[in-house]
Amino acid sequence: MSRPQTELTRARHKESTNRAELDALLDAVHIAHVGLVADGHPVVLPTACARDGDRLLIHGSTGAGWLRRLTDGADACITVTAFDGLVVARSAFESSMHYRSAVLFGRLAPVTDPEQALHVLTDALIPGRTSEIRRPSAKELAATTVLALPIERWSLKLSAKWPEDGDEDVAGDAWAGVLPISSRYGAPLPAPDLRAGIEVPPSISALSDRVR
Amino acid sequence: MSRPQTELTRARHKESTNRAELDALLDAVHIAHVGLVADGHPVVLPTACARDGDRLLIHGSTGAGWLRRLTDGADACITVTAFDGLVVARSAFESSMHYRSAVLFGRLAPVTDPEQALHVLTDALIPGRTSEIRRPSAKELAATTVLALPIERWSLKLSAKWPEDGDEDVAGDAWAGVLPISSRYGAPLPAPDLRAGIEVPPSISALSDRVR
Repeated sequence: MSRPQTELTRARHKESTNRAELDALLDAVHIAHVGLVADGHPVVLPTACARDGDRLLIHGSTGAGWLRRLTDGADACITVTAFDGLVVARSAFESSMHYRSAVLFGRLAPVTDPEQALHVLTDALIPGRTSEIRRPSAKELAATTVLALPIERWSLKLSAKWPEDGDEDVAGDAWAGVLPISSRYGAPLPAPDLRAGIEVPPSISALSDRVR
Repeated sequence: MSRPQTELTRARHKESTNRAELDALLDAVHIAHVGLVADGHPVVLPTACARDGDRLLIHGSTGAGWLRRLTDGADACITVTAFDGLVVARSAFESSMHYRSAVLFGRLAPVTDPEQALHVLTDALIPGRTSEIRRPSAKELAATTVLALPIERWSLKLSAKWPEDGDEDVAGDAWAGVLPISSRYGAPLPAPDLRAGIEVPPSISALSDRVR
């Protein structure tokens, strides 16, 4: 969730209509918050997501009620957010956050290529992982719902500004700046039932190394 | 967003009704995704949040349409999620995530103590910050909506299990385990207009140090 600090050299706080900026966020963050209306009430649930061209993929158990509602054509709003830092102003009022947030609207539909779509989801979270493991079984595919939202109606906000205090506050003694935050993977923890001699595979060591 | 690894010594994937576990999540994660229904359609927006006893606080500009809808009594769902790691199984099907997710339902109402509530919000994100800065002005308070959701109707999911592969997969050659992820603040970046001689204050250095 980090961003090159060069972007901090100018104030930046805007709505973007740039599809490349949307894609960059969707390709960096794989946690989505999916909103739908159930019996008239809003419900928001977190789930993994991955962009595949012009569609955003999610998946889950065929037994999940909220996935069934979406499969049945419920309106959805999928929001993907990266928290990048704190904007520490001289006042609480001007303090805020660095973030990137995509809000996508529409209706999802089951994909016609579930195995391929699951492949994309797996490799989005762990690049290269599908080449290290077996293919899904027919039983596993039958137990999984994979839905896609067309990337058509969306808005994107990118906030990466410096504090914007008034002259009186700037003349005071309070500190102001930005406190960046980033996420990183730690060392892989082998499963208790891992057989002896099986090394950490390239996909996992790459993720674990990349962010150090 | 890290968790002591001792908790990984047993399989753990459950709904919790433990209020202390809910509070621990709400006190650790200050990004909420707020869902509401606008003109029949779901909308999900990210915002800062903080728990204050038995209420969850959010705030924003009085000009924000979604805050006005909530102020007017729209049903809401507020979801707070921590992503703690990847569960890397021998198959894509058994792979999943470590996460903690709270879903709260209800209607928000304007707080009767906005200055105190903003104090709680600021100090939740940056402990001790309010003692370093001036109080909000009357104008700033008038421009800010602070809403509270009673913490009454909620569900909590905590997923921290090891991969649960079947015997056939365990006997194979694929690696399995958990790849933990955590967030940490980096070094504070002083604002371009920071006056010379103003040091990084205790609140910021504490945050920046705590997570290293």
